[in-house]
Amino acid sequence: MAHVLSVSCSLSTSTGSRSISSKPSNQFPSSASVNLPISTSPFKRLAFQTNNTSHKRRTIYIKAISTSQEPIVQPGSGSHETSSEPSVPKKVMVIGGDGYCGWATSLHLSNKNYEVAIVDNLVRRHFDHQLGLDSLTPIASIHNRIRRWKSVAGKDIQLYIGDICDFEFLSEAFNSFQPDAVVHFGEQRSAPYSMIDRSRAVFTQHNNVIGTLNVLFAIKEFGEDCHLVKLGTMGEYGTPNIDIEEGYITITHNGRTDTLPYPKQASSFYHLSKVHDSHNIAFTCKAWGIRATDLNQGVVYGVRTDETAMHDELCNRLDYDGVFGTALNRFCVQAAVGHPLTVYGKGGQVITSHWATERRVRVFNQFTEQFSVNELAALVTKAGKKLGLEVQTISVPNPRVEAEEHYYNAKHTKLVELGLKPHLLSDSLLDSLLNFAVQYKDRVDPKQIMPSVSWKKIGAKPKTVAA
Amino acid sequence: MAHVLSVSCSLSTSTGSRSISSKPSNQFPSSASVNLPISTSPFKRLAFQTNNTSHKRRTIYIKAISTSQEPIVQPGSGSHETSSEPSVPKKVMVIGGDGYCGWATSLHLSNKNYEVAIVDNLVRRHFDHQLGLDSLTPIASIHNRIRRWKSVAGKDIQLYIGDICDFEFLSEAFNSFQPDAVVHFGEQRSAPYSMIDRSRAVFTQHNNVIGTLNVLFAIKEFGEDCHLVKLGTMGEYGTPNIDIEEGYITITHNGRTDTLPYPKQASSFYHLSKVHDSHNIAFTCKAWGIRATDLNQGVVYGVRTDETAMHDELCNRLDYDGVFGTALNRFCVQAAVGHPLTVYGKGGQVITSHWATERRVRVFNQFTEQFSVNELAALVTKAGKKLGLEVQTISVPNPRVEAEEHYYNAKHTKLVELGLKPHLLSDSLLDSLLNFAVQYKDRVDPKQIMPSVSWKKIGAKPKTVAA
Repeated sequence: MAHVLSVSCSLSTSTGSRSISSKPSNQFPSSASVNLPISTSPFKRLAFQTNNTSHKRRTIYIKAISTSQEPIVQPGSGSHETSSEPSVPKKVMVIGGDGYCGWATSLHLSNKNYEVAIVDNLVRRHFDHQLGLDSLTPIASIHNRIRRWKSVAGKDIQLYIGDICDFEFLSEAFNSFQPDAVVHFGEQRSAPYSMIDRSRAVFTQHNNVIGTLNVLFAIKEFGEDCHLVKLGTMGEYGTPNIDIEEGYITITHNGRTDTLPYPKQASSFYHLSKVHDSHNIAFTCKAWGIRATDLNQGVVYGVRTDETAMHDELCNRLDYDGVFGTALNRFCVQAAVGHPLTVYGKGGQVITSHWATERRVRVFNQFTEQFSVNELAALVTKAGKKLGLEVQTISVPNPRVEAEEHYYNAKHTKLVELGLKPHLLSDSLLDSLLNFAVQYKDRVDPKQIMPSVSWKKIGAKPKTVAA
Repeated sequence: MAHVLSVSCSLSTSTGSRSISSKPSNQFPSSASVNLPISTSPFKRLAFQTNNTSHKRRTIYIKAISTSQEPIVQPGSGSHETSSEPSVPKKVMVIGGDGYCGWATSLHLSNKNYEVAIVDNLVRRHFDHQLGLDSLTPIASIHNRIRRWKSVAGKDIQLYIGDICDFEFLSEAFNSFQPDAVVHFGEQRSAPYSMIDRSRAVFTQHNNVIGTLNVLFAIKEFGEDCHLVKLGTMGEYGTPNIDIEEGYITITHNGRTDTLPYPKQASSFYHLSKVHDSHNIAFTCKAWGIRATDLNQGVVYGVRTDETAMHDELCNRLDYDGVFGTALNRFCVQAAVGHPLTVYGKGGQVITSHWATERRVRVFNQFTEQFSVNELAALVTKAGKKLGLEVQTISVPNPRVEAEEHYYNAKHTKLVELGLKPHLLSDSLLDSLLNFAVQYKDRVDPKQIMPSVSWKKIGAKPKTVAA
């Protein structure tokens, strides 16, 4: 699956699950939800249990992945109260905390009184410099971001600048901060980037696979009880002609039955790197008892969160280019500047908005809705009209190798069972995103809009000019 | 699956399939078999079609992976005669040609008049130096091996010393040799090695995944019609509680049916690297039309082939140590020196002897028999008795994380359908291997016999002494 859109990507650690869980709170004495707060306000909550001390419950929800009875992330631990603000901050390391998902998550967690450390090598900014791209929204340096957050919210965020592929650095960060949980966004996250040339393909798989291996070893060595929340992607599954289950599928074959990892059919070197990660994580959960949640996330959209809205210098990035921009964000910016919406090929590719399954390693399909690309374009066209924008749509040759029309039915019931109340794609949400695009339309570089990376034309020779 | 034993691992390119194919030869005008000739004599033939110019046939056997009508490897091409010696040598690059499978394959192909180039960085020898290990059999340098082969057989083998992770080197080797086929053994191939410490785990995944990515890019860039034969492992599948199919499984789920990649559950960083490779190869076959065969190979045993037997300096390596040695080879050497056979845990782990499925990328499960470890120990005990050896068996604590008793039924029908006539594990075969072990028993270092790598105890810190 090439395009995955998230109505809201919620991945953070808070006590929010208590309020949204349909289960009595006393059954989840050490519950913690994981939400990624990027979306327009009011941001959606996509919460699920990361741990609890009830053995019975845990065997249901975290089957075979936890070896310890202790809570994973638990502000307010020791107390079974339902107060919304935790009394005892817990430590969460956000790897890739300067990026799109990472920055919003870091602020959200910090605002919830978690002790947050950002680990980042800032390579995402470096990609922009090399490819001649830029965020629609102006973004402050990570140093100024953190200083501003301190002045606005009065909270400290620790910063470790370095590369998690460098284990000496990662060890130092782990030993220094001693996290209770690691939320790992620190990967090269663009499918087109991974398809620019051989060296970027190799970089993507090396960076993502080795970085995650190092995180797994760091947890084994320095923080065995530390919980890992790792961002995967719905794209790991591809577009099979049967329903997509959450991580695992029960197969009856020749009279025998087993529940096995859902078959993966990734369609870019980036998506493949996530498949490799998922296999490595599943093995270490089994062999070492690593406590991990693999979130098969839909694409994230939106830019504003409660925290980033507190000051201009806290503003998150918004990518509209053909390499890092994702469908809805791109469409809104295109609408704002009068550029036709760029639908690839037939536009029948199905896009999910959220997802994550459990067992051994927990895997959740984190999305709540699915749209075809054409449906998304129609939504943006309609929302743009309300704002007086004339929105047109063109079909451009599909640069990817993918089915442009296909069956797609992906399950995402487990988070709902755990208490998720989905917020669906709404007019107000689209309006807010469009308004951001209009506000910053003078910053738009039209050259960045069209896709420039071809799945078939990728060469062994380095591309030394902007992709 | 931890232990996979191959009764014979046949992977080479010859015209042999004509003689063993049950199909009329005129239906396979450009057929080529792939055999790996390592085993005791008479070596087993495990042959299958790598290509033919009959479109109808190809769509059956190589469905969707070939984009060209041209033959892949075809000595004697242009001729539909059934002569056993090819008239026009074709070029085969054997990556890892100095290793256990690679050396025997290189000689076998050269003897069949293929033009052979060995690409190797000799790191396998370096591992021995670092870990204090050595082959049971004395082995000559690659330079002397090739010189001796020239003097004995009158045939040239080209040599490219370098690392396929270095794309500049690989490009040069490709452009210089211009192979029609690449047989890729050039990976770190020991599960225990990958579990010694973090740096070896990372090395294994980096070396294997990036090396194979580079080979795929080299084929795309420099030899689009070049066929890739890549060694996978039966261990990619793990030990599911349902039958293992060849690469793909047809699943009916909620009223819909699709044929999807068989789910993978690898159990070491090494086996995981092969899973990653398989996913990467499948993607490039789909996106670029790469012509590849992914052989899910059982473990290879034996040491003598017709070619290595021609001169002492052509002798192949035989590993009996706890890191690189495989079950049957180890048991035979243990029997020869009076060391108890080292069965891990209960010894119920099932071992296959050969395997490889087709579709998109062809995948074959290359094995012909399966034994439990206990059954193998019993076979070696019985064969040893005939030679006057007193053979005992001990159970040692299992250093791996694996089920010691499990359901195991793996399919391997496709090669049989293509003409494979299996040679099963025989007394004479065991005798030959045992005789080798007795011949060189003075070279055995007892310290190398016991397993020394633990799946659970692997640490982040480098192990700086022998594992």
